[in-house]
Amino acid sequence: MQETTRLAALVQERIAEVMDAHREQLEGLGPDALPLLDEASDYLVGGKRLRARFTLLGFASVRPLDSSASAALDAACALELFHAAALIHDDVIDRSDTRRGRPAAHRSFAGVHEARGWRGSAEHFGVAGAILLGDLLQSWSDELMQRACDASSAPMARTAREHFNRMRSEVALGQYLDVVEEQQRGFSSEDVQLERSTRILVYKSAKYSVEAPLLIGAALAGASDDHERALSEFGLPVGVAFQLRDDLLGVFGDEELTGKPAGDDLVEGKRTVLVALARAALPDTQRRIFDDLLGDDGMDAEQLAMLQRTIRRSGAVERVEEMIARNIDRAVASLRTAPVRAETRAELIDLADRAGRRRS
Amino acid sequence: MQETTRLAALVQERIAEVMDAHREQLEGLGPDALPLLDEASDYLVGGKRLRARFTLLGFASVRPLDSSASAALDAACALELFHAAALIHDDVIDRSDTRRGRPAAHRSFAGVHEARGWRGSAEHFGVAGAILLGDLLQSWSDELMQRACDASSAPMARTAREHFNRMRSEVALGQYLDVVEEQQRGFSSEDVQLERSTRILVYKSAKYSVEAPLLIGAALAGASDDHERALSEFGLPVGVAFQLRDDLLGVFGDEELTGKPAGDDLVEGKRTVLVALARAALPDTQRRIFDDLLGDDGMDAEQLAMLQRTIRRSGAVERVEEMIARNIDRAVASLRTAPVRAETRAELIDLADRAGRRRS
Repeated sequence: MQETTRLAALVQERIAEVMDAHREQLEGLGPDALPLLDEASDYLVGGKRLRARFTLLGFASVRPLDSSASAALDAACALELFHAAALIHDDVIDRSDTRRGRPAAHRSFAGVHEARGWRGSAEHFGVAGAILLGDLLQSWSDELMQRACDASSAPMARTAREHFNRMRSEVALGQYLDVVEEQQRGFSSEDVQLERSTRILVYKSAKYSVEAPLLIGAALAGASDDHERALSEFGLPVGVAFQLRDDLLGVFGDEELTGKPAGDDLVEGKRTVLVALARAALPDTQRRIFDDLLGDDGMDAEQLAMLQRTIRRSGAVERVEEMIARNIDRAVASLRTAPVRAETRAELIDLADRAGRRRS
Repeated sequence: MQETTRLAALVQERIAEVMDAHREQLEGLGPDALPLLDEASDYLVGGKRLRARFTLLGFASVRPLDSSASAALDAACALELFHAAALIHDDVIDRSDTRRGRPAAHRSFAGVHEARGWRGSAEHFGVAGAILLGDLLQSWSDELMQRACDASSAPMARTAREHFNRMRSEVALGQYLDVVEEQQRGFSSEDVQLERSTRILVYKSAKYSVEAPLLIGAALAGASDDHERALSEFGLPVGVAFQLRDDLLGVFGDEELTGKPAGDDLVEGKRTVLVALARAALPDTQRRIFDDLLGDDGMDAEQLAMLQRTIRRSGAVERVEEMIARNIDRAVASLRTAPVRAETRAELIDLADRAGRRRS
């Protein structure tokens, strides 16, 4: 267990090094560029580092990290940078003003605009800054992935790249589906709605948060096809549990712990599995009120509390909790016969457990 | 001359192949994802393909393209995809509603929203779709660059990657500086303003449009340091001329040819070198009126025409034309002693000339 925990601590150090190197390289562009570089560095401090840890664990499940850990560390950092870029763009898309308890990047840039008394719209400047910062971090993520691959043999690098590439496409498409879903006037029939919400959950988050990092790490360690299959069998249900927990936190989470306003998902009108299950359990009249309120950004505290109560009383929370538990159980059970190194089994179980139970 | 012209035609074909392959891979995400994939394909048709041509020419300046042209073609396509991604995000940032005579990507997505009668803001959905499409195309650009590098020897790939990476960072930072400049209340003193506008021009466009593609192509052909230096000496002034022409087209361009509304840059308040020179030549009272109007998005046709006239009468147009001619001359002169293949010299001169003289 010590091995990857120790290395996860190195992730922050390496990210800081990478940011400093970029800053030095780009100094020639003058002081006006500093807010962009500062925001990049600030944004990369903190977070759960879940993707970095799963990358390192994926590698360690094949062979020890101590030798040749550098490529795995670079890949772990690449995933953290990619995730930061995705979150920055996601917050613009979802019009979320907070992230990890501080202003979202677009709010932060709007703050620079206001503080300096610039002309024009601070809000639009915020969006522009966030778009460009996300683009920059996506490029830098890619550079780290290149370095990871350069330090690995060609076949390993190719496989790791394939996983990385597929992940990036699927996340963008999954996010798009998520946004499209929010724009629908009516809901689909219950089964279809659950299927749609589940597909979004799988592509936007489940594969991306757990399975892809595991596979990328494992590929860099030269995992066999069988080994990769075993990690998918473990990783996908853990990712599903992770996102189902996220859905619960998006409705009932403690703002102090999540760093996001409570009930954010309801104001945004996210059609999560939790919401699909709640709606399916409501009598017609209640469902109509529910549908009218969901995604209404003028909703007041009382209406929000009413939606939360309705979901709780529908029994959907228990069903989602059961789904989380079932997915974690399935993942843990799959490890029994998985060809992973014995030393990493306990750590995989521990991380799976945390992904399912987290409160932030 | 035949060689790269013939290959430039293959760029379109290869881009279409790549888009089809992605579409096939992502079919599992269902029909709702189609507008994103459709817009990606539509967006990649047309354009000047300037960057693709310079990439191919950079390669051909070192050795013939006929053998091992595949890597150069992939890199050329990578640059076109990257450029598409940058334009899509740029149009959101600049609130430009047209591109190449058709709706900008964010307008196109807003149109999907309107046509389907979805709920919520069509405009915001447009922004969300454009952000995600840009992200997707940036990833796919990167995949093509990987393939180009995989087909090249390790040292060539490394150098090509360095150029590609530096380019991406500089474009994002250059665009950021451009946006920051538009937000300033006052202008800097004349010399400082010209210096600021020039720095933006160099990073946002000049290096990116010509020098970087040339260097990436040349690196994949194994160019020596001397060869690369010669291409930079040629490419940077051509890029400067290219962007100065763009500044003129942004104020005086024919909408039919540019695919952008005439005077767009003035409405957006872009502080181009042209604008900096015009302001410097104006008497105080006229300059105050000019400053008040520039970037005022409520400006009417008469006010726009007045700004155009003021710029014309200031003599700034002639000065920019002189700068363009001087830069092209310098570029062409540098070729006399440059170690480029004789067969490509005429084509480099021809493309330089076109970059300086284009009307679209």
